[in-house]
Amino acid sequence: MRAVVRRSGKLICDEIADLEPGPGQTLVRTLACGICGSDLHALHHLDHMVDMTRRAGGGDRLNPAQDIVFGHEFCAEILDHGPGGGRFKPGARVVSIPVNISAAGFEAVGYSNTYPGGYAERMILTEAMLLEVPNGLATPLAAMTEPMAVGAHAVAEAAVEPGSVCLVIGCGPVGLAIIAALKLKGHGPVIAADFSAARRRMAEKLGADLVVNPADGSPHDRWSDFGVPNTLAGHSIARMTGQLKGKSVVFECVGAPGVLQACIEGCPPGSQILVAGVCMEADKIEPSLAINKQLDMKFVLGYTPEEFAATLSDIAEGRLDVAPLITGTVGLDGVADAFVALGDPEMHVKIMVDPTLA
Amino acid sequence: MRAVVRRSGKLICDEIADLEPGPGQTLVRTLACGICGSDLHALHHLDHMVDMTRRAGGGDRLNPAQDIVFGHEFCAEILDHGPGGGRFKPGARVVSIPVNISAAGFEAVGYSNTYPGGYAERMILTEAMLLEVPNGLATPLAAMTEPMAVGAHAVAEAAVEPGSVCLVIGCGPVGLAIIAALKLKGHGPVIAADFSAARRRMAEKLGADLVVNPADGSPHDRWSDFGVPNTLAGHSIARMTGQLKGKSVVFECVGAPGVLQACIEGCPPGSQILVAGVCMEADKIEPSLAINKQLDMKFVLGYTPEEFAATLSDIAEGRLDVAPLITGTVGLDGVADAFVALGDPEMHVKIMVDPTLA
Repeated sequence: MRAVVRRSGKLICDEIADLEPGPGQTLVRTLACGICGSDLHALHHLDHMVDMTRRAGGGDRLNPAQDIVFGHEFCAEILDHGPGGGRFKPGARVVSIPVNISAAGFEAVGYSNTYPGGYAERMILTEAMLLEVPNGLATPLAAMTEPMAVGAHAVAEAAVEPGSVCLVIGCGPVGLAIIAALKLKGHGPVIAADFSAARRRMAEKLGADLVVNPADGSPHDRWSDFGVPNTLAGHSIARMTGQLKGKSVVFECVGAPGVLQACIEGCPPGSQILVAGVCMEADKIEPSLAINKQLDMKFVLGYTPEEFAATLSDIAEGRLDVAPLITGTVGLDGVADAFVALGDPEMHVKIMVDPTLA
Repeated sequence: MRAVVRRSGKLICDEIADLEPGPGQTLVRTLACGICGSDLHALHHLDHMVDMTRRAGGGDRLNPAQDIVFGHEFCAEILDHGPGGGRFKPGARVVSIPVNISAAGFEAVGYSNTYPGGYAERMILTEAMLLEVPNGLATPLAAMTEPMAVGAHAVAEAAVEPGSVCLVIGCGPVGLAIIAALKLKGHGPVIAADFSAARRRMAEKLGADLVVNPADGSPHDRWSDFGVPNTLAGHSIARMTGQLKGKSVVFECVGAPGVLQACIEGCPPGSQILVAGVCMEADKIEPSLAINKQLDMKFVLGYTPEEFAATLSDIAEGRLDVAPLITGTVGLDGVADAFVALGDPEMHVKIMVDPTLA
C-alpha cells in the first residue's frame, strides 16, 4: 500500500508492506488524517523527542532510525477484522485514540515502527478502542476529534472557575482548541494572543473575547481590562472583598524558550500557568518570582479516553465548530509540501491528508 | 530600647527609638522569636530579595539601605495599647501573623523600616491580628506557630490524597514543618531526604516513614519501595487497576539551583512538585520532560490567617510536637553568632531569640 514514510529525516511517498489484522485488531482505510505540529517537529528532531519520552519513562519501542509513518489525528473506514473481532461492519466510519493495545502493552499509532499512522492508505487499529462516527458527521470534522481533545484535556486539568479570566498565549492548533474548549464550557473572559493576524482572526471566530498582538505590547498588560490586579496587596484585597473570583489562568501554547518565564513575570499573583506548548529545549525560570506570586505551573499532554469520546460528541452534535480550522486538504503526494506550508501561520491551521485522493 | 539592627549587611546590637502604639495598635514585649532561614538569606542578599518581591508586585515599602530589625516568628506579652484598643490585658501572651494593617495597607513586621521585628525588646502589632496563647502553652513553643504554619500551608495547597506517597527533599525547618503537617493530617507514607544525619534523625522523630541520605543514591529510587511505578505505561496500568491511589507529591524544600530539575527527572509520572524551598537564582528546567510526565509544579509561600490560627491550636493541644525543633536559645547579644551557627545543619534547627535575657 502507499504511505508517506519518514526515512532519514525526510518524508518519502513509498509502497510499504500490506497489513494483516491480528486478534482484537481491525484493518481500516484511512479517510482523513490531520497534520499535527508534533509531526513537524518529529520530522527533524525525532531522536530528541524519543530521548525525552524515554527519560520520562516511555518510548522504549520507537527506533527513530527505522521507517515511521506519522499521522495520529484520523478518521477511517472499517475494512476487515482479525480473529474474534467484528464489532463494526465494513464501511462503518470510526475514530480512535491513536494507541494500540496488546498483551505486550501500549503502542502509539503514528509514532511506531510497527503500526503505520494515518499518512498511509490503511492502518491497523485496536477494535476495543474504536468509536463509530455519529450523526453522519463529515469525515474531516471527525478527524478533528484528536486535536480538539487536547484542548478539552487542558481545560479539564486547568483550575478555571466561574469568574476566572483566561489568557491563551499562542493561537496555533493547541491554543485554538483550548479557546474553543473554554467557550464550550462557558468559561471566560478569554484573552488570546498571537503575532499572526490570521491566527488572531481565527481566535476571534472561536469566541475569544479579546485578541492581542504581542508586538503591540505584552498580553499581560490586559489582565487589568478584566479587573485583575497585578500587585500582591491589590490581589489580596480584591480576593478578600470578593471583587476577584476565580483563579487567573494562563494557557502557554507556544513552547519556545523564554515564554514560561515571561508568563511567570507577567501573570497576576495566584495564577495558574497551564503549560500545553511543548518546549523541547531546556528553559530558564526564576523560581523565587513564582514563589512570591504563589503560582501553579501545570504541564499537560494528550487527553483521557473519556475526554476523547466527549469531544467527538461535542463536534457531532454541533457544540464545537471545527470546520473553520481546516484550511487545506492534500493527498499523500502533497504531505511533504504541506509540512513546509504549515510553517507559515498566516496560511494554515490544520491541513488534512486524504490518502484516497489520487 | 535594645534591638538587633541590620545595617549595611551586618547585625548590630544597638539602642533604637522607643515605640508608641497608634490607633488599633498594641505595644508588646517580645518574649521569644525564632530565627528564620529567610533572615539568614536577607542579611546578605536583601537587595535581591526586595527586587524579587517588587517584581512580584509587592515590597514597595522596604528600603534595604535603611535600618531593619528582623524577626517574624514571635510570641510576645501585651504592654499597652493605642487609642481605642484594649482587647487584651497587659501581661497576656499573644502570637500574630507578622503583618501590620492600616489604612495605608499591609506592612510586614520584621521586614520593615517602620516596624521592628522580634529581635527587639518591644514591637508594635495590630490588635485585630493578635491571638492569645491558649492552654498555658510555653512561650517558645507558641513562637513556633509561624514556621509550623508554613508547613501546614504547603500541605493544604498540595494535592495529597489518601494513598499519596510523599517525598520531602530537604529537612531544614520548612521540610520538617511539612513532615509534621503531613503526619498530623494522617498523610503518608512520607520519605524524607537530607544530607545531614542530624536532620534525618529529626525527620524520623517527626514521623517520617523512611529517611534517606542522598549521598547514598537518589531519593527518587525509593518511590518503588512504596509501589509507585516510574514508567509511563506502568503508571497508567497501576492507576487503571487501582493499585496506585493518590497523586505522588514531592515537597521541594531546598531551594538551590538544579533541585527542581532533579525532581522533574526523578519523580513518578503524574506527580505534583510542591515548591516550598526558595531558590533565589534563575534555574534551568526541561519543560518537555515535565509535559511528558504531566507534572504539576506548585509554588507556595506563607500561610493564611486560618492556617496560622489552626497551627497555634495544634501546638497548644499537643497534636503537633515542636519542642524537639528548638535547639538553642540566645539573647539579643547572641543573635549575630546564632546566624553563623545556623549554617551548620548538624548543630541546629531552630534557635530562639529571647530579648529578655541579660
